[in-house]
Amino acid sequence: MQIGMIGLGRMGGKMAIRLVKAGHDCVVYDHDSSEIATAAAEGARSAKNLPDLVKLLERPRAVWLMVPAAAVDAVISTLTPLLSPGDVVLDGGNSYYHDDIRRAGELRTKDLHYVDVGVSGGVWGLERGFCHMIGGDTDIVQRLDPIFRALAPGVDAASRTVGATGKPSNAEMGFLHCGPTGAGHFVKMVHNGIEYGMMASYAEGLNILKHANAGLLAPAKTDAETTPLRRPDLYKYDIDLPQVAEMWRRGSVISSWLLDLAAAALRESPALDGYAGRVSDSGEGRWTLQAAIDESVPAPVISAALFARFGSRGEADYADRVLSALRFGFGGHLEKTDERH
Amino acid sequence: MQIGMIGLGRMGGKMAIRLVKAGHDCVVYDHDSSEIATAAAEGARSAKNLPDLVKLLERPRAVWLMVPAAAVDAVISTLTPLLSPGDVVLDGGNSYYHDDIRRAGELRTKDLHYVDVGVSGGVWGLERGFCHMIGGDTDIVQRLDPIFRALAPGVDAASRTVGATGKPSNAEMGFLHCGPTGAGHFVKMVHNGIEYGMMASYAEGLNILKHANAGLLAPAKTDAETTPLRRPDLYKYDIDLPQVAEMWRRGSVISSWLLDLAAAALRESPALDGYAGRVSDSGEGRWTLQAAIDESVPAPVISAALFARFGSRGEADYADRVLSALRFGFGGHLEKTDERH
Amino acid sequence: MQIGMIGLGRMGGKMAIRLVKAGHDCVVYDHDSSEIATAAAEGARSAKNLPDLVKLLERPRAVWLMVPAAAVDAVISTLTPLLSPGDVVLDGGNSYYHDDIRRAGELRTKDLHYVDVGVSGGVWGLERGFCHMIGGDTDIVQRLDPIFRALAPGVDAASRTVGATGKPSNAEMGFLHCGPTGAGHFVKMVHNGIEYGMMASYAEGLNILKHANAGLLAPAKTDAETTPLRRPDLYKYDIDLPQVAEMWRRGSVISSWLLDLAAAALRESPALDGYAGRVSDSGEGRWTLQAAIDESVPAPVISAALFARFGSRGEADYADRVLSALRFGFGGHLEKTDERH
Amino acid sequence: MQIGMIGLGRMGGKMAIRLVKAGHDCVVYDHDSSEIATAAAEGARSAKNLPDLVKLLERPRAVWLMVPAAAVDAVISTLTPLLSPGDVVLDGGNSYYHDDIRRAGELRTKDLHYVDVGVSGGVWGLERGFCHMIGGDTDIVQRLDPIFRALAPGVDAASRTVGATGKPSNAEMGFLHCGPTGAGHFVKMVHNGIEYGMMASYAEGLNILKHANAGLLAPAKTDAETTPLRRPDLYKYDIDLPQVAEMWRRGSVISSWLLDLAAAALRESPALDGYAGRVSDSGEGRWTLQAAIDESVPAPVISAALFARFGSRGEADYADRVLSALRFGFGGHLEKTDERH
Repeated sequence: MQIGMIGLGRMGGKMAIRLVKAGHDCVVYDHDSSEIATAAAEGARSAKNLPDLVKLLERPRAVWLMVPAAAVDAVISTLTPLLSPGDVVLDGGNSYYHDDIRRAGELRTKDLHYVDVGVSGGVWGLERGFCHMIGGDTDIVQRLDPIFRALAPGVDAASRTVGATGKPSNAEMGFLHCGPTGAGHFVKMVHNGIEYGMMASYAEGLNILKHANAGLLAPAKTDAETTPLRRPDLYKYDIDLPQVAEMWRRGSVISSWLLDLAAAALRESPALDGYAGRVSDSGEGRWTLQAAIDESVPAPVISAALFARFGSRGEADYADRVLSALRFGFGGHLEKTDERH
Repeated sequence: MQIGMIGLGRMGGKMAIRLVKAGHDCVVYDHDSSEIATAAAEGARSAKNLPDLVKLLERPRAVWLMVPAAAVDAVISTLTPLLSPGDVVLDGGNSYYHDDIRRAGELRTKDLHYVDVGVSGGVWGLERGFCHMIGGDTDIVQRLDPIFRALAPGVDAASRTVGATGKPSNAEMGFLHCGPTGAGHFVKMVHNGIEYGMMASYAEGLNILKHANAGLLAPAKTDAETTPLRRPDLYKYDIDLPQVAEMWRRGSVISSWLLDLAAAALRESPALDGYAGRVSDSGEGRWTLQAAIDESVPAPVISAALFARFGSRGEADYADRVLSALRFGFGGHLEKTDERH
Repeated sequence: MQIGMIGLGRMGGKMAIRLVKAGHDCVVYDHDSSEIATAAAEGARSAKNLPDLVKLLERPRAVWLMVPAAAVDAVISTLTPLLSPGDVVLDGGNSYYHDDIRRAGELRTKDLHYVDVGVSGGVWGLERGFCHMIGGDTDIVQRLDPIFRALAPGVDAASRTVGATGKPSNAEMGFLHCGPTGAGHFVKMVHNGIEYGMMASYAEGLNILKHANAGLLAPAKTDAETTPLRRPDLYKYDIDLPQVAEMWRRGSVISSWLLDLAAAALRESPALDGYAGRVSDSGEGRWTLQAAIDESVPAPVISAALFARFGSRGEADYADRVLSALRFGFGGHLEKTDERH
Repeated sequence: MQIGMIGLGRMGGKMAIRLVKAGHDCVVYDHDSSEIATAAAEGARSAKNLPDLVKLLERPRAVWLMVPAAAVDAVISTLTPLLSPGDVVLDGGNSYYHDDIRRAGELRTKDLHYVDVGVSGGVWGLERGFCHMIGGDTDIVQRLDPIFRALAPGVDAASRTVGATGKPSNAEMGFLHCGPTGAGHFVKMVHNGIEYGMMASYAEGLNILKHANAGLLAPAKTDAETTPLRRPDLYKYDIDLPQVAEMWRRGSVISSWLLDLAAAALRESPALDGYAGRVSDSGEGRWTLQAAIDESVPAPVISAALFARFGSRGEADYADRVLSALRFGFGGHLEKTDERH
């Protein structure tokens, strides 16, 4: 099948190569010509610019965007006048599903189709395959089935669930038409919300293990500003975190792909001192939380994970100063001095 | 009534003066002789040391400790051999109630009584009165009633609750015998847990108001590491925080004494830049949370408030580095660079 | 000064009476004629309907809406054609500030002014005064100053903050022009967010005190489904909650108006068994949280408080079933049976 | 190698069989003789009672306990007089590591050794292998290496981490000597804390997906008690949860063994209506949180997960009633009626 791919960054480039290797005809464009060359070397056809890319595709065209969420609208507005009725635009970036709904409506007035695709798999997708969450009209999504199938990891990527027999479903291949426009990015958004919670779970747990030696450290000065550890004898463990992460990968209840990554990172640097710990967020955690709020659904874990990221970037500073000011107000507590009140 | 007071720090000194002014005979000691002099100038009798203090009191003695929690056991062990059967030791510091139960048991073997008293009111208690939460044997607590009554704010400190008539109860004066040994510090512990939650509520709210100008600030660099504000037009408010806090003090649902303190602090420095925002904790928040865990009672707000304090002191740093390492692992995200995955 | 008041419910009716008592000319309307009669008996002028109300006011008119947030747009659209250029519409309900910005824009095209007013004080405002947070154009807000002043509690409602001298500021009276359109409801929104956190702090603390008797209760069946209390001896307190709340009202760090209300409610029924504990939320907590998310500001306490309300209404049920299903999946745990895994 | 196994429940029985199949000499006992028979049928030797079991083992003996945490002390006290100096007792249940430290000290006075082993793997361990976290003296733990190796999943259970080459380490087999006494259960405790957070992440995410149809449901009664959904058009998705879970298993960032279990459970019953959603906790989540508190390490996600379980069992009920009572107090809000204040 034929497809145009715009944006050959960390994921798009690998997707194009995976498609080419599966025998698809992939026309590629990126503002960085070296990325185009890399894909072309693997068998993709190069486009010089967007009009060229459109020209190189036969109708009805399918053009897949793998560009930053902030750039999608600009690319679409450049692309739209070049396309013909019946053509399909796919957005595989991390768009907010609200934008999907708006864009699909705009494109529909021009007889163009819009498919939103949440893609998970990160930089490992070339070997591992990409997991796809798809939203849009059923006939259009079905038409593109060979593309999704080629990108997906395939049924062998995990053992089949008990009760699943016969020809594997799309979900068992690693892609799913989740519903009408926006459904793909909605499910991807929640996927990332879950990811936040899981990552924070490992991060908190490893932090607790790291501090299991609290009772071995020289006691802090005996000012009353920090509660002394009542039982230092219970915190005399120097835990080897890289080994622990490695061990948990096999047979434990918390084995996961994220744990595999944690084990790899810890093996490289147990103290992780190459990282400053200013944790970014790319929006899906926030949107997941807003969906929870709109739906009146409690999401205490995902919100705690999101706020921990905000906090890692110093966004609680003023709130913290308010606390110190109040403590001084009622107890005369100077920061780091006597604590009694 | 006669009482010995050991420890004339921020609260003890003011309590001694309040007792003297109420006509009680107060014998005082502190390791800092200038504190003794201050209390003596108000009419307290000075003791040169602990044996002297004990000698200056008639049996059955009542000796009130207002020393740091970490020092209580040492003072008690010095004091015990000097006391006589029937004497009472009161601990008015921020002891963990587990220690109260242990100490009362130890003193009981020597026919000494132990009363635990949680005292709230901070450095303002001289004018405002001190609120007391008391644990111990009923007859002993009742014997000391005049002392508690003199220290307490009295019924006029708040309007009487609808339905409360006649002679004010002890609770309406601002003190309460909460139960057997430990009950005083247990209730004080939970009091401080509530205080953590309330303080954090104000701190978060004021922080949100402070950032209500997010849409006025120059947009951050357009890298994808931080989600752009979708609607800057909705965040164009420069809120005058000192004025807001002042306004809320009158007639609003969130008026409180902590808000009074917040208004005072903000009036002095709206940016609170005299504070670094490293927020200490003196133990009660932790113990409240442990009680909640033991009782299987959810305490999400108090725990969030406690952990925000830990976080303000950099205790999440390793956890944050784990998150950054994982993000790099699956998405190739360098801190502060492109975000897509 | 003259004002029209539409909506004489729990708050609007009392506001009208407070204005009349302060000597203002208040024209009132409500769809419930008995509410009109009540206000009229206190000296307000009755309007038969909206056109009548508009006719009874002189230009430039000021019409204050105290109707449910969901009804504001409908009332405004009925009102708008009846008004004249220069007239002012005030919305004193719990509108989302996004709606304020939209409405002000719509009214501006008709030369009408819009002022958003967040009002706090609840059903107690008649005696206690109402706290006002105001958004809108400066000249219009200043024109209405006498109205706000009459509704506000006045400076004597709280002792003046140290450093505040001379003629009290508006904030010290209990009202504040917080900024342009929406600023009033924005500040009120955050006020309610803080209120959620404070209420939850008291609720959690009281719940922990209530369960301080866990060690006195007959031990649960010895199945392993619930962790046994390791130290029942530490939880043998029967705490008198109404007395505790009463005591904290005087002299403690956590005294507040909400605590006054808690003491009154607990006095009436210590078990609070008239309440089912399905806690509603009227939107401001959600919006506060969305503002925090948009601003990248951590709000773990306010979010925990909001989600506790959602949870109280059973909105976590499916999530809980997922947990039970997973526990069965990896450990064969039937709900309420053996726990080991 | 020879080992005695006491307790043949859900995990112990499978462990005995796995050991026998690996060629070890396994003497088994359980209070339920049918469990003994099952193990004997696979080649284990049966013991009639504890003295018999001890007699059937050669010195230095190794006796592994797989009994409920609450029963460990009783079994040890029966066992101790039967054992000889140099013998080893292993506790493979979910003991609190505080108990390990105490027990090891008690056994040491009798020249007996104690090894704590946290075992993960649940009811699936027979096929999947068991992951072991071990605490105790190095020479004793090393002596038992063949046992741990036989129980562990082995290196092939996961692909090797980049950089791991040569003979697989113990951690890569799925077991690890984590440190001195207690270290095994400490690491297992934190493992379970992480498990709580991960489970809650999936549960919250699936709950949000389930309610993505909120805009399709008939609107609730227009009373103001619950905020209306502002944009029902954004919540019109009927998401097929079993399919979503299945899809995420392949290629996504959140693939894990817990997700495998979720997919299986959802396949069987998408509504999970066989579960009431009263989620138990067996202690490790609580202990993890207490360790975090002792270490001053923030654990907002794990605590939120723990408290969600408490909440699922109705433990927030009194707190919720406090909230309703306060709302009635300041706003006259009856539960489920008008909301304005």
